[in-house]
Amino acid sequence: MTPSDTAMNPYWSDVVRGLTPYVPGEQPKLANLVKLNTNENPYGPSPRAIAAIRDALDDKQCDNLRLYPDPNAERLKAAIAGLHGLETSQVFVGNGSDEVLAHVFLGLLKHARPVLFPDITYSFYPVYCGLYDIAFETMALSDDFSLRVADYTRPNGGIIFPNPNAPTGRLLPLADIEQLLQSNRDSVVVIDEAYIDFGGESAIPLIARYPNLLVVQTLSKSRALAGLRVGFALGHAGLIEALERIKNSFNSYPLDRLAIAGAVASFEDPAHFDSSCKAVIATRERLVHAMRALGFDVIPSAANFVFARHPAHDAEKSTLALRQRGIIVRHFKLPRIEQYLRITIGTDAECETLVTALREILAG
Amino acid sequence: MTPSDTAMNPYWSDVVRGLTPYVPGEQPKLANLVKLNTNENPYGPSPRAIAAIRDALDDKQCDNLRLYPDPNAERLKAAIAGLHGLETSQVFVGNGSDEVLAHVFLGLLKHARPVLFPDITYSFYPVYCGLYDIAFETMALSDDFSLRVADYTRPNGGIIFPNPNAPTGRLLPLADIEQLLQSNRDSVVVIDEAYIDFGGESAIPLIARYPNLLVVQTLSKSRALAGLRVGFALGHAGLIEALERIKNSFNSYPLDRLAIAGAVASFEDPAHFDSSCKAVIATRERLVHAMRALGFDVIPSAANFVFARHPAHDAEKSTLALRQRGIIVRHFKLPRIEQYLRITIGTDAECETLVTALREILAG
Repeated sequence: MTPSDTAMNPYWSDVVRGLTPYVPGEQPKLANLVKLNTNENPYGPSPRAIAAIRDALDDKQCDNLRLYPDPNAERLKAAIAGLHGLETSQVFVGNGSDEVLAHVFLGLLKHARPVLFPDITYSFYPVYCGLYDIAFETMALSDDFSLRVADYTRPNGGIIFPNPNAPTGRLLPLADIEQLLQSNRDSVVVIDEAYIDFGGESAIPLIARYPNLLVVQTLSKSRALAGLRVGFALGHAGLIEALERIKNSFNSYPLDRLAIAGAVASFEDPAHFDSSCKAVIATRERLVHAMRALGFDVIPSAANFVFARHPAHDAEKSTLALRQRGIIVRHFKLPRIEQYLRITIGTDAECETLVTALREILAG
Repeated sequence: MTPSDTAMNPYWSDVVRGLTPYVPGEQPKLANLVKLNTNENPYGPSPRAIAAIRDALDDKQCDNLRLYPDPNAERLKAAIAGLHGLETSQVFVGNGSDEVLAHVFLGLLKHARPVLFPDITYSFYPVYCGLYDIAFETMALSDDFSLRVADYTRPNGGIIFPNPNAPTGRLLPLADIEQLLQSNRDSVVVIDEAYIDFGGESAIPLIARYPNLLVVQTLSKSRALAGLRVGFALGHAGLIEALERIKNSFNSYPLDRLAIAGAVASFEDPAHFDSSCKAVIATRERLVHAMRALGFDVIPSAANFVFARHPAHDAEKSTLALRQRGIIVRHFKLPRIEQYLRITIGTDAECETLVTALREILAG
């Protein structure tokens, strides 16, 4: 089918015709790649998560896959609520944080006034706005990619950004987030904390005082369960109820039985979580040091990736040269950031392979 | 939180305020229930599906849950396409057929003209219309709950119904579906075949001749994987492309690694599929016979459930009396069908327990 065939398809809704879908990072099927392009965790999930999924498949229970999962995933909500001292009515769970974010846009950010988010941020946000016909305005980050909270005082239908931001990795201090919440009491402020566990301070403790705060997290990064698809949102019960109403008008059972079992067990293993986050952070600091030694400008990162450019080497060419050496990083052909590489923190060995390759490429 | 708290929540979008969410059948956590309320398959999934999930968790690969799944689930699309002699570009997969249907409504059924569906049908359809602001009209089924295709010739923005229909179980012959397709060439006709494998004839062979036909199926019923959440749609590549664009604007990775592995393996075990479908059909015929002997009017069913009423006994009272005996069936408090029970086909033993209980209740 040629593009014109699809463009001409008479059965598409106007919504489809107007869409510019999100393009996720490549998931290549080649073996032996050093895959540093989609911010996956090099250390794998808690062995308890794997064991819990095995248990759910055990002889007496495997038969249970024939039964629908709990549509409300109460066990998982209780595990998350318990971890953060919240009620289960303050927890929403979904099929990855992308699904959670989709429901957030439709349920809490679709208003007459535009949603505000940074010009450089998670590139799925404008896609959701396109899907649900939501007005938005982007606020330019500073030259050093820091977010100025004073820019977010204009009338708005909501505010959303990742903290630390993607793809820059730069962290916004909690005091700035609180200032945002105070100056935007009439709209929801969504803090997308996909990467918060790699060195940031979560806004979750502010939920008790700000009914307009929603915090979104995922098990795909710090808990290394990208392959299982679990994300969640935390906030005032009134905000969560909006998400439940959307979810129950979309798909009653978004989380399968194995995902619920694995996710619950993941939260029961704080030691694995702590040690793998610390290992990622330590490797990141070594990688930042090595890349700066090679002449890269590296944005300070509180995430499991770094965002860096070399003043003398084109980023797209470097991306291709790395790929020829079997190393995949992410490069965005977007204004202001087209000279940057976004590099996931892998194992120490993977990062050493990367640094060696970069050294060769810069010398070449 | 009281209902007024949520109703007053100032942060909700107008979409949320206007919603009447779907209410799924209960998933009780009590043991030893005879659970005949949500059309689950009593025989469990193919052992190959369980084995494939175990393999995906095996030592060398368990680490793989740290990696995102294939966003396009190409292996699964290839398995489904191969089974039906289609191209992978004619296959869309989603996180259960409810998610697939949601994307169908937004991508292919949202037009200026109203969507048409029967007055008695899957009660999620009007909920999707509410979620996406889609106009719809319901067409009354005949007194015997059969669908008259002549009713569906008026201008419309699409047509959708389950075949066999839910919750009646009544099948529409393929010739009638072809007539519908011919008289509605300007709009998409969606046949929701969640229950087709229990005695109906699928419309899939018509896809080659009708670019306006979309067939939706699920692995939750005939393949007994309700707990894994996998559904799919088949149709002309132009229709599938619309669904892909919606999906890629909503959630890049709707199917997790284990669901993909289990679903693929399920399609590789036709013997298990055939024998369990045949067993369900045989039990259904025995149950229909026994219920008619008790005086029930039973709608002819091509599904894994029966829809029946007793002329002398109130359905709600019977539902409660069954529940007191540990047997759960579904009762809809809706016009025209409030005197019906919808009863899932369980094992022979479960259906015998049900018949014994009904006999006692009717005698009481």
